[in-house]
Amino acid sequence: MEMFVMERFKDRRSIRKYKRQEVPEEMIAALAEEASRAATMGNMQLYSLVVTTDADVQEREALAEAHHHQPMVEEAPAVLTFCADFHRLSRWCEERKAEPGYGNFVSFINAATDTLLFAQAFITLAEERGLGTCILGTTVYNPDRIIEALHLPHLVVPVLTVTLGWPDEAPEQTDRLPVEAIVHSGHYHDYTAEDVDRIYAAKEALPESRYFVELNGTDNLAQVFTRFRFTEAECLEMSAKMQEVLKRQGFSRR
Amino acid sequence: MEMFVMERFKDRRSIRKYKRQEVPEEMIAALAEEASRAATMGNMQLYSLVVTTDADVQEREALAEAHHHQPMVEEAPAVLTFCADFHRLSRWCEERKAEPGYGNFVSFINAATDTLLFAQAFITLAEERGLGTCILGTTVYNPDRIIEALHLPHLVVPVLTVTLGWPDEAPEQTDRLPVEAIVHSGHYHDYTAEDVDRIYAAKEALPESRYFVELNGTDNLAQVFTRFRFTEAECLEMSAKMQEVLKRQGFSRR
Repeated sequence: MEMFVMERFKDRRSIRKYKRQEVPEEMIAALAEEASRAATMGNMQLYSLVVTTDADVQEREALAEAHHHQPMVEEAPAVLTFCADFHRLSRWCEERKAEPGYGNFVSFINAATDTLLFAQAFITLAEERGLGTCILGTTVYNPDRIIEALHLPHLVVPVLTVTLGWPDEAPEQTDRLPVEAIVHSGHYHDYTAEDVDRIYAAKEALPESRYFVELNGTDNLAQVFTRFRFTEAECLEMSAKMQEVLKRQGFSRR
Repeated sequence: MEMFVMERFKDRRSIRKYKRQEVPEEMIAALAEEASRAATMGNMQLYSLVVTTDADVQEREALAEAHHHQPMVEEAPAVLTFCADFHRLSRWCEERKAEPGYGNFVSFINAATDTLLFAQAFITLAEERGLGTCILGTTVYNPDRIIEALHLPHLVVPVLTVTLGWPDEAPEQTDRLPVEAIVHSGHYHDYTAEDVDRIYAAKEALPESRYFVELNGTDNLAQVFTRFRFTEAECLEMSAKMQEVLKRQGFSRR
């Protein structure tokens, strides 16, 4: 707590290795309580946070499987699954003879929005306390298995998984695009070939970028993304699964 | 900058009235640069931020219309439209003879996730500097008009709109559910009737809740939500529009 968030945030990096020291459940609850001050659609708080620790042997194992046994899921003191949740509000409605009409796509979008704003608020506050976090891209690979592992009911879908613990590494910061690449004044200004060259120059010149190009035998870094890291075939498979999950959890009729 | 974020965040509230004092574009760019340190899927930074100010007369007017002429859209020094953006990365791929395969649903979800984490990081940092923000739920009502107003190309979809300025009000904090309502230990624990009563008791007892129940002539607050604030008919209409927009912007073939 010695630093301002401005300094900390500029300095932040994802942490994948953690000390073997637990994060007390009360601390996680306190962070969740503060983070719940984040803005929320119509003050409905359309999210739930499922906290899985070493005490939860079965859930932990099932989560590790769903996340392809990434070491940080197996080793982090806590795995946080942030879920879009219209179930709680619907339960309230049912108990009050109000008819909830939230089994539709825009309700999923509203709930996912609330959830992600809450999640980032939580992450920022946790890091401010000296904790380390890492988000897992694998949440969209196996949402069905996560739903099963955590017993998520109708109208609850996992949207972000975060590992949490006390940092046991001090990795280099990863690169970011220059800010001119992401901010548009007045309206969106499309990117010319020259803009693309300028904006991606630093990223393409990084030693690790050149390493991955060589390793994969491609002409350039963009091809590493399209042919290996995020291929269309994989994206289409995940899209189908995600749409199936939205249907199964009740957010879509199609 | 006198307070820690922990104290500030606990204390935060949305601000809808702003002083007639501009927020310099350089300040917004600096905040965006810092916020871009937020975690991002595969370090792709799948977002763009469109900043609309008084200088952008046409865009401003079109945005005000899209957001139902809410006063803060017309009066805030800056309107920030956070967009899920797979266009920039795809442009890069095209310029590098890599074939981008991101015209699908999971790519929209990944981009929206990146965007919302970036947006909340921006909001926290802006509030830390003394700025006030308010998120607009209307982004999901008229995404088509926002796309037109801001010239958003293929694979760019607005996911969150935030008004930004120097606070000219000090409103009461709005209520939040007790933290036990949102945190689940190990796995999801469903809510019994008693849980619902306990969790929603404070919200239902608020003077403004009772005022809205009386105003709308309902039996209770839950019915105010289902019959007036977020009706099923309205949700279905918005769902259809949102799915149409995802298709039009190239994130879905159906």
